[in-house]
Amino acid sequence: MKRYETYAQEIADLIKTKALRPGERLPSVRQASMSRKISPATVFAAYYLLEARGLIQARARSGYYVNATRQPMQAEPGTAVISAQSTEVVISDLVFEVLDSTRQGDVVPLGSAFPSPALFPLDKLARSLTPAMRQLTPQRMVEDLTLGHERLRRQINLRYAMNNTAVDLDEIVITNGAMEALNLCLQALTRPGDVVAVESPTFYSALQALERLNLRAVEVATHPRDGVDLDSLAQVLAQHPVKACWFMTSFQNPLGSLMPEHHKQALVELLASHKVPLIEDDVYGELYFGLRRPLPAKAFDRQGLVLHCSSFSKCLAPGYRVGWVAAGRYAQQVQRLKLMTTLSTAIPSQLAISDYLQGGHFERHLRQLRQTLELQQAWALKVIEAHFPPGTRVTRPEGGYFLWLELPAHVDALQLHRLAAAQQISIAPGHLFSADKRFENCLRINYGYPGDARMEEALATLGRLASGCV
Amino acid sequence: MKRYETYAQEIADLIKTKALRPGERLPSVRQASMSRKISPATVFAAYYLLEARGLIQARARSGYYVNATRQPMQAEPGTAVISAQSTEVVISDLVFEVLDSTRQGDVVPLGSAFPSPALFPLDKLARSLTPAMRQLTPQRMVEDLTLGHERLRRQINLRYAMNNTAVDLDEIVITNGAMEALNLCLQALTRPGDVVAVESPTFYSALQALERLNLRAVEVATHPRDGVDLDSLAQVLAQHPVKACWFMTSFQNPLGSLMPEHHKQALVELLASHKVPLIEDDVYGELYFGLRRPLPAKAFDRQGLVLHCSSFSKCLAPGYRVGWVAAGRYAQQVQRLKLMTTLSTAIPSQLAISDYLQGGHFERHLRQLRQTLELQQAWALKVIEAHFPPGTRVTRPEGGYFLWLELPAHVDALQLHRLAAAQQISIAPGHLFSADKRFENCLRINYGYPGDARMEEALATLGRLASGCV
Repeated sequence: MKRYETYAQEIADLIKTKALRPGERLPSVRQASMSRKISPATVFAAYYLLEARGLIQARARSGYYVNATRQPMQAEPGTAVISAQSTEVVISDLVFEVLDSTRQGDVVPLGSAFPSPALFPLDKLARSLTPAMRQLTPQRMVEDLTLGHERLRRQINLRYAMNNTAVDLDEIVITNGAMEALNLCLQALTRPGDVVAVESPTFYSALQALERLNLRAVEVATHPRDGVDLDSLAQVLAQHPVKACWFMTSFQNPLGSLMPEHHKQALVELLASHKVPLIEDDVYGELYFGLRRPLPAKAFDRQGLVLHCSSFSKCLAPGYRVGWVAAGRYAQQVQRLKLMTTLSTAIPSQLAISDYLQGGHFERHLRQLRQTLELQQAWALKVIEAHFPPGTRVTRPEGGYFLWLELPAHVDALQLHRLAAAQQISIAPGHLFSADKRFENCLRINYGYPGDARMEEALATLGRLASGCV
Repeated sequence: MKRYETYAQEIADLIKTKALRPGERLPSVRQASMSRKISPATVFAAYYLLEARGLIQARARSGYYVNATRQPMQAEPGTAVISAQSTEVVISDLVFEVLDSTRQGDVVPLGSAFPSPALFPLDKLARSLTPAMRQLTPQRMVEDLTLGHERLRRQINLRYAMNNTAVDLDEIVITNGAMEALNLCLQALTRPGDVVAVESPTFYSALQALERLNLRAVEVATHPRDGVDLDSLAQVLAQHPVKACWFMTSFQNPLGSLMPEHHKQALVELLASHKVPLIEDDVYGELYFGLRRPLPAKAFDRQGLVLHCSSFSKCLAPGYRVGWVAAGRYAQQVQRLKLMTTLSTAIPSQLAISDYLQGGHFERHLRQLRQTLELQQAWALKVIEAHFPPGTRVTRPEGGYFLWLELPAHVDALQLHRLAAAQQISIAPGHLFSADKRFENCLRINYGYPGDARMEEALATLGRLASGCV
């Protein structure tokens, strides 16, 4: 973290703990610079950042003042009540119906699973492609087939080490995005008919994977802020022959929940005591708004039971299709399944990303991306508050780019989706996120696109439709 | 086909039909040029090509003469006898053991499934990458997710049209190499426990896919020259509830067999009468040594029952992982499975190949590649004849880059593989190509690497080991 960011974070903490109250004046740039022994430029940068985050405000010829705290206007949703049964999964047709409607050219993509491609350094990556490929020897090409490009695997390994997560180079397999990694893990761990524990609500691709492989889902109660409820999980493990868990531990899709690190540790210990492996889907982990990257559950794994899956698709290079899994004791099985199904991951994509990482641009890009997403979240919350019906509850995730809305109980989100689609607006109705017909008055909203007039108009329309929807 | 190629082919046909006999003189360049109304340069080019193919020979100050016909020294193998039972497939461990041994850096890759990467225009492709990616709009990136890059799909469609094969643009799905296409087709067509008909011997990846999906294999007798025996197939269809066939109709791996086009037509009709779909693996189709690309079975399909799979990996761009399927009436199912398992194919790879095709270099590259492979085959046959034990039978495929050797009955190819591996030579023993413990005295040899001294020494060593193997 740069010096100005450290200083900005200190001020933000003072504001959060009310040591600095709304309306109070911040130290002048000169005072702060002298008392903290930092340059005026650093102080300016910190104040600018705080202003961008909406925490402080400049007044002409007077200095910086703490903003009035935003009232926690709309309540946050709570944990849903879950049935104790495992369920056969039948959801794909509905998912495809909804996805198809989001892919038309002119639709406002509030239902999209991706942030705006404009947020990514696609031009810089493209410039890495040709030189990177021309360095490649034919022999290297053959040797990199199995596990993926070795330099990229070393770079990924180093990022684990920097994040206090012990991973062996040998357990990393490069895949066609995290989606392939997750699917290979599931295949490595299960046979048709097995039971897999998932969050409730959960990412629809997890449900589709279960359906495709003829697996049964048991849904575990999940808190919109703290993630999987460990007591509920303990009960599920006691009652069902669970073969694997598939959880998204940081900025879960769709809730945005972030499991506290001591929960993650307890999760790993609970699963280890049952010898149940965890497929950890961590594709949003880099998109945190806090001080540092949250540790994954993998960081607490001592037995090789956590298969940690991630990718560059959500934080750097959509369309390049480069993901990976650190598969613990299942690495060889995953690697063989990869060889048998898609053989290997495209080499140009791997080399371009490796080259980009080598150039040292990644951290700066990530800082900017996180800041943009945090601002867009604040904007989206404000617009939703202004336009949605009373009784609407909204999450306030500490990372990622999804909001989860719980509408008044009588609203049917699938009907809302159809009304919205007719107006060229896509949303992701709650129906997609459960095998068990739950969350039918909920929806997921993507704030990963710039908050422009068109987006504001779409959110306003959506709020109006939701108000009229009975 | 260029004019000089047409003329060369006419001469080759005269030699083949013995209208021109060994030792006879060809028309002089001047005579030929005048009588055929073609330029002397065209005649020269034709003669040069025929010389490169070993059919004629220049004598100083005298002209070109027909070479002595190569004696059909070693016999070709015949069709293996097949049991009538379907078999549970258990082969993966053996395949992985053998593949691992071929991937060491210093091994002579006679067992490899790939031709030498040096045969491909990797540098030209690399130069297409950056400009191609920089043309891409973010919106395009999202729209191309599902089926693949649209321009590339149009180019593939055009190549089908040029080869007299009617395919709808909508049935083409771009995949991570043909391997993914084949796997998706198999998943779209079967459920665990179903029976799938394959060739005998068959490509081990087909057997691995069957094993992974818990399918049963029924092997169909396959002639080393003409491919699947249609009478045997008719019997199999009468006796087994076959859900799909997986056949490689042109330059089959490992036999190199090429089904005559009227057989392909009869195959399509036979399967249509049983309503059985055909997964047609056609990854070697471009590597023909004859006058034109052989038609695929897909060309005769009127009912959308043929799922035609191919790729650029064997003929243009290994490591780029771009393949496709024209999936007929199963296109939507395949597309959905693709979305659920790997989401989409890497865009940089698709754009680079599309850009390369647009540049018009592909045909010239293919001509050169075919010629190189044909020459390397002639070389490999000569070396094998010189060094392998009496009684060895060898195929003479009309395309691709594999030879299939049937050694004397007492030779165990798996033992030969282990002896060869100890000497840094890889081979693909026959055991890999059947679920039914057949072909144990057979092996597949790759002639897709340049025939240099090291390769010759390796083949000589192999022949010696085979002679001593009891």
